[in-house]
Amino acid sequence: MQNIKRIAGEIARASVPIVIVHGAGSFGHPQAKKYHIQQNPDTEGLAKTHRAVLELNTVFVETLEEEGVAATGVHPLDCLLAERGVVKRWEIEIIKKMVDFGVTPVIHGDVVMDTVNGISVISGDQILTYLAKKLDVTVIGAGTAVDGVLDKNGRTIPHITSSNFKEVSDYIIGSTDDDVTGGMRGKVLELLKLAEFGIESVIFNAELSNMVFKFLSGEVIKATRISGA
Amino acid sequence: MQNIKRIAGEIARASVPIVIVHGAGSFGHPQAKKYHIQQNPDTEGLAKTHRAVLELNTVFVETLEEEGVAATGVHPLDCLLAERGVVKRWEIEIIKKMVDFGVTPVIHGDVVMDTVNGISVISGDQILTYLAKKLDVTVIGAGTAVDGVLDKNGRTIPHITSSNFKEVSDYIIGSTDDDVTGGMRGKVLELLKLAEFGIESVIFNAELSNMVFKFLSGEVIKATRISGA
Repeated sequence: MQNIKRIAGEIARASVPIVIVHGAGSFGHPQAKKYHIQQNPDTEGLAKTHRAVLELNTVFVETLEEEGVAATGVHPLDCLLAERGVVKRWEIEIIKKMVDFGVTPVIHGDVVMDTVNGISVISGDQILTYLAKKLDVTVIGAGTAVDGVLDKNGRTIPHITSSNFKEVSDYIIGSTDDDVTGGMRGKVLELLKLAEFGIESVIFNAELSNMVFKFLSGEVIKATRISGA
Repeated sequence: MQNIKRIAGEIARASVPIVIVHGAGSFGHPQAKKYHIQQNPDTEGLAKTHRAVLELNTVFVETLEEEGVAATGVHPLDCLLAERGVVKRWEIEIIKKMVDFGVTPVIHGDVVMDTVNGISVISGDQILTYLAKKLDVTVIGAGTAVDGVLDKNGRTIPHITSSNFKEVSDYIIGSTDDDVTGGMRGKVLELLKLAEFGIESVIFNAELSNMVFKFLSGEVIKATRISGA
């Protein structure tokens, strides 16, 4: 909670047009696991998992508002149609209009309706990838709880491209045990796909004070940069 | 609140596949008025009005869940793009999939992004009309705080069609002073449009115990029926 308030404050201070995407964190993953919603989709798992991520989203949106950012939650269950766990359709014009209007959309990993599977889980990272391609995104900042992608000695790998990915791939471990959506490895893989489209990413430690502000202000920070080869 | 709990219980008891649409009621209308969001759209009006209707929606969804209905809120701001105050695009497949999956979508009047006006208010009645045409709707029940549409003596007008609308039109007054979206007259006009498409509506008093249950069970109730000529 303290972190959310601090990060919201840094976002307010930086005052740049952004779209925020967050994962389910400790809210949604335990629910998704408990109800086995990927293997055994049912209405209870859907409702409970969605409600859990909504709770985190609401805290984030309300904290941003308190810090003076006009923010609104956008919930993938309402607007995103998946097919076999992949985004099939999503009216992105709404997100564009929000940003143009001066509103910061706060979007999250979610359980969504799926044309084949009934329901499926779409991670925050998948959402990020989809949005980045559709919107005119300059750079993606991935705030995590570590100093970027670490090597086996715990040192930050400064730069990952598709060329050196195999080399560093072994070191990449999941960020938390509860993450049903791929952890750090999944994140890097998604961001590498974006790098192919010319969209650069920066993975940094958002738990450290001022890192979000510095990233948004274009300052150089300790981080892993992911870009095209 | 007592009414919401009772109505949620009646919906649970009837156990039929439905889509619920509610207005902003005493939550959103005062906000929409205060911030003049139709005349002077800004981010504060957007955020405050949306948050107010979200609050009502959350109460409704949580109460339905408590009564055993798998329900989820669907928020037009997230998924509906308007043009000059009229629905332009909305991925209705998501609503269909929810109903097929056994989930009851609970949708509300909302402030939404608008391609021309920046933002605009879309009433619960407009949403109802749009959905009814897109979904395979058998009948629409409009639960209000009165016994349907009343004549000048306070008696329920049993049947309104486009043929007798002019005749009864004078008696129809707004349901509340705070309603920025047309009140009872607006409701009847929207439902008459649907009647032209062969979709019948029933306006009844949802404040009376068991009326929602009886309507959903197909029983005859004191109400105004709106149908084609």
